[in-house]
Amino acid sequence: MFKINENYLKLPGSYLFSTIGKKVAAYQQANPDKAVIRLGIGDVTLPIAPAVVEAIHRAAEEMGRAETFHGYAPDLGYPFLREAIVEKDYRAWGCPVEADEIFVSDGAKSDCGNIQEIFSGDSRIAVCDPVYPVYVDSNVMAGRTGEYDEGTGMWSDVIYMPCTEENGFSPELPKETPDLIYLCNPNNPTGTTLDREQLKVWVDYANRAGAVILYDAAYEAYISEPGVPHSIFEIEGARTCAIEFRSFSKKAGFTGVRLGFTVVPKDLKCGDVSLHSLWARRHGTKFNGAPYIEQRAGEAVYSEEGNRQVMEQVAYYMRNARTIHEGLKEAGYSVYGGVNSPYIWLKTENGMTSWEFFDYLLEQANVVGTPGSGFGPSGEGYFRLTAFGTYENTVKAVERLKALRQ
Amino acid sequence: MFKINENYLKLPGSYLFSTIGKKVAAYQQANPDKAVIRLGIGDVTLPIAPAVVEAIHRAAEEMGRAETFHGYAPDLGYPFLREAIVEKDYRAWGCPVEADEIFVSDGAKSDCGNIQEIFSGDSRIAVCDPVYPVYVDSNVMAGRTGEYDEGTGMWSDVIYMPCTEENGFSPELPKETPDLIYLCNPNNPTGTTLDREQLKVWVDYANRAGAVILYDAAYEAYISEPGVPHSIFEIEGARTCAIEFRSFSKKAGFTGVRLGFTVVPKDLKCGDVSLHSLWARRHGTKFNGAPYIEQRAGEAVYSEEGNRQVMEQVAYYMRNARTIHEGLKEAGYSVYGGVNSPYIWLKTENGMTSWEFFDYLLEQANVVGTPGSGFGPSGEGYFRLTAFGTYENTVKAVERLKALRQ
Repeated sequence: MFKINENYLKLPGSYLFSTIGKKVAAYQQANPDKAVIRLGIGDVTLPIAPAVVEAIHRAAEEMGRAETFHGYAPDLGYPFLREAIVEKDYRAWGCPVEADEIFVSDGAKSDCGNIQEIFSGDSRIAVCDPVYPVYVDSNVMAGRTGEYDEGTGMWSDVIYMPCTEENGFSPELPKETPDLIYLCNPNNPTGTTLDREQLKVWVDYANRAGAVILYDAAYEAYISEPGVPHSIFEIEGARTCAIEFRSFSKKAGFTGVRLGFTVVPKDLKCGDVSLHSLWARRHGTKFNGAPYIEQRAGEAVYSEEGNRQVMEQVAYYMRNARTIHEGLKEAGYSVYGGVNSPYIWLKTENGMTSWEFFDYLLEQANVVGTPGSGFGPSGEGYFRLTAFGTYENTVKAVERLKALRQ
Repeated sequence: MFKINENYLKLPGSYLFSTIGKKVAAYQQANPDKAVIRLGIGDVTLPIAPAVVEAIHRAAEEMGRAETFHGYAPDLGYPFLREAIVEKDYRAWGCPVEADEIFVSDGAKSDCGNIQEIFSGDSRIAVCDPVYPVYVDSNVMAGRTGEYDEGTGMWSDVIYMPCTEENGFSPELPKETPDLIYLCNPNNPTGTTLDREQLKVWVDYANRAGAVILYDAAYEAYISEPGVPHSIFEIEGARTCAIEFRSFSKKAGFTGVRLGFTVVPKDLKCGDVSLHSLWARRHGTKFNGAPYIEQRAGEAVYSEEGNRQVMEQVAYYMRNARTIHEGLKEAGYSVYGGVNSPYIWLKTENGMTSWEFFDYLLEQANVVGTPGSGFGPSGEGYFRLTAFGTYENTVKAVERLKALRQ
């Protein structure tokens, strides 16, 4: 009789967003006259930029004519996109990355979830706490995380690096040596960042300890301060210890378009085996390339016009982020993030748990956010708001939260 | 120091198509005046159907307007596509499949490669020989296949089911009981099929043995004979033992568009755990949905106009397949497939190995095909031609092969 991967059964239910949905629906049903504002989701709301829409139309036309039709894409992505990426995202920032180190994919979630496959089954992982759940869950599925403790919300074999108000949301170097270190910068969910000096400490540590940094830079486009690195490859030494994940989702509103890429530098090796060759083999065996149309859409993001348009969208969201950050700070809330990130991380009021605060905001202000405890044990007592709503709703939501403190 | 997944190092180099490419390039360079015809690749050549191009344009417009913009897709696919699939691919054939059993993805290769993850690490797999390499390679990466024997080209822990002229390319039930049985019907690379009665034997066997059939129906659109099932769910009992993979790649020329789906019936269980719930968890954790634009493109394939157009393309390719099959048969070659499949499987001449025959055809007829030995040990002595060229080239290639026997 066939058997299943028992590791899947260890995963606790993933109820965060469904519980939010149910609570909001119940509240709306009981209070049909209240206008609830949703600042909980991490999905964008602005439409695709005109230059990108144009590129999609052009690509569709090409696909409809025999002379310009494109079948299977190169496993690792079309040169036109890989070259644009290297030019604008790396060379422009002085990062030593080559086009053949770029692996184009259908998004950072897939890559972040799949990357663990190329590492040994007994690899020890370290994650920030709170954290984007995919890092841990994909390792649970692979059997690397030991047992789950319902009480603490922690896995026995995962090294947690708390990121809280106390340490300025900057994780400390772990006491136990990990094999794989997941870092998300700017961070989801806290919206905070590591600057170049802080990241250099991690790069040096990883090189010294023989660990790989799995660096998620999905929110790179939101960086506004000069001290925050746009890529880990700005840091000397990163080419021998880091893999970087990038996404078009938040930068260009591609959550429904699906495009991302991963950089695996050829200098990153275990003995004489390059991780680049392993990831290439994984891509070639279990993936058939990102769609031609989406790769042309991605290319358009790097055009002069496309870049201007997507940066206007980022600016729109960042005005929302500032509105939330500054408005709530002014009102006396303890608030973090929102400067180099579309996420604002808020301390709950009066020692409420994250869920108590959720209910409080829903009922008293008709504002929906995401309980911080949904991202890990150290997220308890915090709350995430996002900048992806409309400006008008964002202003309204901030006014309502302000009113609660008056 | 971090360690890699050592299973990746066990994989023999994947040189089939690169070796073909090098040999053809070398021949062309030495013989610049010769017009080489390529019938080796499995990629389509006709452009996307007009109704599909139209749907992509419409979807691009929607994505460009705030009121109709689509962000993250539902993990398992948009209802409009899942409903169309169920209606046209299942209900129309009397198959008991529901829309919430359809998982839309970026293609059958990803799904065929990833499906093994939800099964136990010590699962025993059975594959037809010759076979699409992804089934075995994805299990090698997961450590299920034991050791590779360079001499035989076989893995110690894989159950091989030879499909040759002797058994009419119909695999026999294995002597050892497998946990997972990969079946591809119509078959890649042989182009042959199992009929309903033959498939029923497998379904009954799997239910009896407690095995799961991983049924790859990527070439379903090419079925022309009434006795060949379009889905394994036409067979009674399949809902408790089978997962089915489908692709738009060969049906609608989507090799560069990327869209497929997998059917996991809710009745398929290990104890009280449904594989449906595991695959849903996998999808939700490591995948972020197929692009909205591609899902609308897929929907258009099921429209009256779209269906007519893609079926005209299939008919074009099948005229090529008939041309090859009948032409070569008439000339005295031993030829299989090509009736319910775009692949024609040919015995080599005079006991040549597959690669000897490759060189022979390249040099004597300037025709490129794929050596059968590239698909597994029992493919030795066979050769694959595909129907995806132009009709004119296909006719020419057949004339040249005929001439070799005169």
